[in-house]
Amino acid sequence: MKAVVFDGELKLVTDYKKPEPKVGEALIKVSMAGICNTDLELTKGYMGYKGILGHEFVGVVEEVNDKDKSLLGKRVVGEINCGCNNCQWCYQGLQRHCPNRQTLGIWQKDGCMAQYVCMPLDTLLEVPENVSDEQAVFVEPLAAGLEILEQLHIQPVEKVLILGDGKLGLTTALALNVSNLDVLLVGKHQNKLDIAKNQGVNVKLLSDLVIKKEWDFVVEATGSISGFETALNLTKPRGTLVLKSTVAASKEFNLAPIVIDEIKVQGSRCGQFAPALRLLKSEKIDFSPLISAVYSVDKALEAFEKNKEKDTLKVLLRF
Amino acid sequence: MKAVVFDGELKLVTDYKKPEPKVGEALIKVSMAGICNTDLELTKGYMGYKGILGHEFVGVVEEVNDKDKSLLGKRVVGEINCGCNNCQWCYQGLQRHCPNRQTLGIWQKDGCMAQYVCMPLDTLLEVPENVSDEQAVFVEPLAAGLEILEQLHIQPVEKVLILGDGKLGLTTALALNVSNLDVLLVGKHQNKLDIAKNQGVNVKLLSDLVIKKEWDFVVEATGSISGFETALNLTKPRGTLVLKSTVAASKEFNLAPIVIDEIKVQGSRCGQFAPALRLLKSEKIDFSPLISAVYSVDKALEAFEKNKEKDTLKVLLRF
Repeated sequence: MKAVVFDGELKLVTDYKKPEPKVGEALIKVSMAGICNTDLELTKGYMGYKGILGHEFVGVVEEVNDKDKSLLGKRVVGEINCGCNNCQWCYQGLQRHCPNRQTLGIWQKDGCMAQYVCMPLDTLLEVPENVSDEQAVFVEPLAAGLEILEQLHIQPVEKVLILGDGKLGLTTALALNVSNLDVLLVGKHQNKLDIAKNQGVNVKLLSDLVIKKEWDFVVEATGSISGFETALNLTKPRGTLVLKSTVAASKEFNLAPIVIDEIKVQGSRCGQFAPALRLLKSEKIDFSPLISAVYSVDKALEAFEKNKEKDTLKVLLRF
Repeated sequence: MKAVVFDGELKLVTDYKKPEPKVGEALIKVSMAGICNTDLELTKGYMGYKGILGHEFVGVVEEVNDKDKSLLGKRVVGEINCGCNNCQWCYQGLQRHCPNRQTLGIWQKDGCMAQYVCMPLDTLLEVPENVSDEQAVFVEPLAAGLEILEQLHIQPVEKVLILGDGKLGLTTALALNVSNLDVLLVGKHQNKLDIAKNQGVNVKLLSDLVIKKEWDFVVEATGSISGFETALNLTKPRGTLVLKSTVAASKEFNLAPIVIDEIKVQGSRCGQFAPALRLLKSEKIDFSPLISAVYSVDKALEAFEKNKEKDTLKVLLRF
């Protein structure tokens, strides 16, 4: 089968062995996959990962290795963290922190940028009929945005500033905004900010923002190592800085302001899919304007190049 | 009057002008003051402070410039942050975050290492009769330890590791331990650990500790910039790292583990005095073993030198 593989270099392989579902797994024919900035970080050596890339997909269940065949033929998305389902983390529904987890296309499990992928049945959720493939493929980043609300209680009267107008910032801003929170999205690109603005989000160019420690919540979603300090300069004393960007690089920091202002720095990664699917079903968010291009898998390498371009948001692969 | 002053260099001044209480203030004859590591940081340029040092004291009210003279003649301690009492922070009892605050001996207000100090009446609390001067002078660091419980809900079943066996770590460990939490104090000095052990705290040498991400709460109280990374390697996924050390220095950090493990990093500084005084009154903690030496103010410079010695814990000045 065709697969987008990283083994020290990024390549399109056409004769990758088609996987076979183990007991409790489904074989899924992938319809569409998304390229995430994490995929780019992986091709720079992040996590030391080698294998098929990709953790954002929608597909159709073609085979089920289990007594319960209810998902056969269904259009599905899949949670990216596959836990052992036999530890304190998994018992809490926190497979994403299971110490023995495999993470689709990131850690010890081949990803979804291939014609077929095998997934444990309990990671799969059926996509509601009214949600197109193009929208459904955003379920993983949308769940990551909603993760903030799993972790923190943001009161409706509190002020939330989201820093960064890339995919991560836009998705998070759209998600929190439709949750009726008081959101301001701040970035450097008016064209990107406009995508959120057109869907009712308050936006501002970073150059127009007064940098003052007055925000109850600041979500750092710049994808850049320097975003942390800007975020710290915007968080009010006793406020919360939500750290979303995973950057492989290190930087010199002075931690004293965190202590002096008693800031809470909350790391935030993946979220659960059910609330994200519910939101997609409601059609309150339209992800189409975030799609910069859709490529056939045959042009996957071109798609990765496109993804690096400055103005690109989401690039999708069609299988 | 005699005063310990930092004006670029540390000196004992004998003819410092005796302060006069403004309306709403008391003039306090200082009996005893403590040297804190923050004082040492100030003499290295932290906060750019110049003036009388000291923010830990106990004394007797000698004069009150107010209609309400109830504190006259009373033995008192004083909260170190003097707010404007007319902002959102002060209204919440969070004078320690008032943007216009003065902080005793740290920011825009002469400190207490002098024969006399003036303090706003509302910062003063009477010391219970059974609490000696030597114990009372620990109220500020004790309040800083208890601040953790103002900020966070630590459940009785959760595991707390306190990293650092200096004054800050010992005080925090003693405070949390008598609050019936599951506490382990970890440090590098058996003689210091024994002080906590003798008062019922579980202790362990760092060299005997298995470094594993399994602690619900890790309190970083090492006073060293490198303590942060050790603390991060001990905090379990979704756990809380309480950052207590204020270190002027910067260091290179990789923030990705905070995101991946969804750690909460909680900065923590000063606490309120009332709960600390209540604890002192209960006599459940004995601070005597933390007192390394008591010097007359005339030997203040010697006292500061003593404070720098490796094995020294608290050094007190008597006036």
